Amino acid sequence: MRLATLNDGSRDGSLVVVSADNRRYTPAGGIAGTMQEAFDRWQEAEPQLRALAVRLDIGQIEGRPFVEANCLAPLPRAYQWAEASVYTRHLELMHGGRGQDMPASFWVDPLISQGSSSHFLAPREPIVLPEKALELDGGFGLDFEASLAVITDDVPMGTNPAEALQHIKLIVLVNCITLRHLVPGEIAKGFGFFKSKPAASFAPIAVTPDEFGRQWQGGKLAGRLLVTINTRLFGDLNPALDMAFDFGQIIAHAACTRRLPAGSLISAGAVSNGDRVRGPGRPISWGGNGYACIAEMRMMETVDYGHPDTRFLTDGDVVHIEMVDQRGQSAFGAIEQEVKRI
Amino acid sequence: MRLATLNDGSRDGSLVVVSADNRRYTPAGGIAGTMQEAFDRWQEAEPQLRALAVRLDIGQIEGRPFVEANCLAPLPRAYQWAEASVYTRHLELMHGGRGQDMPASFWVDPLISQGSSSHFLAPREPIVLPEKALELDGGFGLDFEASLAVITDDVPMGTNPAEALQHIKLIVLVNCITLRHLVPGEIAKGFGFFKSKPAASFAPIAVTPDEFGRQWQGGKLAGRLLVTINTRLFGDLNPALDMAFDFGQIIAHAACTRRLPAGSLISAGAVSNGDRVRGPGRPISWGGNGYACIAEMRMMETVDYGHPDTRFLTDGDVVHIEMVDQRGQSAFGAIEQEVKRI
Repeated sequence: MRLATLNDGSRDGSLVVVSADNRRYTPAGGIAGTMQEAFDRWQEAEPQLRALAVRLDIGQIEGRPFVEANCLAPLPRAYQWAEASVYTRHLELMHGGRGQDMPASFWVDPLISQGSSSHFLAPREPIVLPEKALELDGGFGLDFEASLAVITDDVPMGTNPAEALQHIKLIVLVNCITLRHLVPGEIAKGFGFFKSKPAASFAPIAVTPDEFGRQWQGGKLAGRLLVTINTRLFGDLNPALDMAFDFGQIIAHAACTRRLPAGSLISAGAVSNGDRVRGPGRPISWGGNGYACIAEMRMMETVDYGHPDTRFLTDGDVVHIEMVDQRGQSAFGAIEQEVKRI
Repeated sequence: MRLATLNDGSRDGSLVVVSADNRRYTPAGGIAGTMQEAFDRWQEAEPQLRALAVRLDIGQIEGRPFVEANCLAPLPRAYQWAEASVYTRHLELMHGGRGQDMPASFWVDPLISQGSSSHFLAPREPIVLPEKALELDGGFGLDFEASLAVITDDVPMGTNPAEALQHIKLIVLVNCITLRHLVPGEIAKGFGFFKSKPAASFAPIAVTPDEFGRQWQGGKLAGRLLVTINTRLFGDLNPALDMAFDFGQIIAHAACTRRLPAGSLISAGAVSNGDRVRGPGRPISWGGNGYACIAEMRMMETVDYGHPDTRFLTDGDVVHIEMVDQRGQSAFGAIEQEVKRI
């Protein structure tokens, strides 16, 4: 089943069911007006939404043309947004960039931070920041992070990893926007990310795990995650590889001292793949898999040339993030955002 | 105006207006069914809610008996929960306890962390944790933190401190529950608090700033904040004192790289007062103001005796947090929670 939220001018938008080919939709308002409403009574709503999806797919309902640009994030605002960071290469490179070693605890204890869920950007919404954030030098170091996340139903406190997998109801694609130059100061203070992590953006379609068949296994989703900057390919990664913890383990960790209410968003962090030729990976132009964020590319340039070469994002840049599924089709629709100053 | 949320079995409860003497209430469902609904269209809802409050206070509406134990948190779940920590003594003692110096940046850059807003505990709801969290030694170090927070309407990105004060619509009293023994590990990882900060609890009544008259000045609220553990007075503090940043400055900081949508909760962190006799303060039993969390008491015991004496909370302990306003009346109603294991 594929769900999306149309922009109707309200804060939460209106829930729709999307056809298997992403081309048509039908309103789900008769079942649940918004995505959060559906999660607030998921057990009852899910079979009704699935029945509607079947009727749309077999043509019993004609539907209307689905336009990604008319969508909000699937959950335009949420009550819980827990961001793990479980791709080893990403963490090693990020810590290396700050002149630190990756904490040893990372191998047994997933890194997780509390993200801001107050509002998320729509798939085509510009990334708008103040002038000083976008200066080429001395700005805030505007970067993206292509990531996968899941949305859960009610997860009790103390859930184990195997049980946790059963609570994953939808998978979504995220651009976790990061102001890279604000990160070291916030890490040094020890209170986590706040100014450095403004609102994240989401691809339009949220997808149930069963839609992925064998691509979804053991809490990991395989496929091609494609990232371009200004139409140039920057990353071509497989999110199922190089995860130190799967989504079941991440959710169990997040639920260690609290329950996670229905509609909780849990991310695995910036996707990052190692490389058989060279451990920390190679750019696309060298025949490698490239990167899902600029900071990793800059770190590798620093290793290779002594200084970073790729600049962070600025006014007018366009980032495109999309995942291709086993049918060769866009799994979640695309995130495509232009950077603009206030 | 005084607002509360009654427990009606739903996730968001139902909004009510409370009389000036905290004794009666009347449902606000005709204006907004829930607190978040009121904030989603605050400009329209506020004057209507105020008119209802006046009719309740002058007896045009009889109202029903207001029972604190029937309340949820004023906002039972929220989209934004930003927790600053602006009381200097608290930070100095906490850093000292970890063998660290307080970061110098604290004096110019408020410490702020992203809190979990997915669900909050009701004023009388037990603090329930797994067995191992409550062990007397080697447990999770269960502690409370008596704090004030505000709820804002829509705050644009880049708001300055003076403008930010105008966005404060309600003031609330919070117990920011902290698992003290999990804090050092999370601080060391640099990703902020997650496991160490389970759901916070709130006093039942949210109050508009004008209700406090001259007690509310320059983004600081004066009054007596009383904390007892098992009916024994533990803290008698004035939250207006010793704030390194006022609520206007905290909100402006939080809105530096993001907007804060209506219904955002912003806390000033654990209240902590210095002492004219001895800088880091004295316990109630020594004639001092005491403390708003156990960790500070333990830190001072370590200074005085070489080891902490007061134990963290365990099964059966009861914490009571309440603030007295200029009329000698409970400003927000009381938080009173018993600790229980799963």
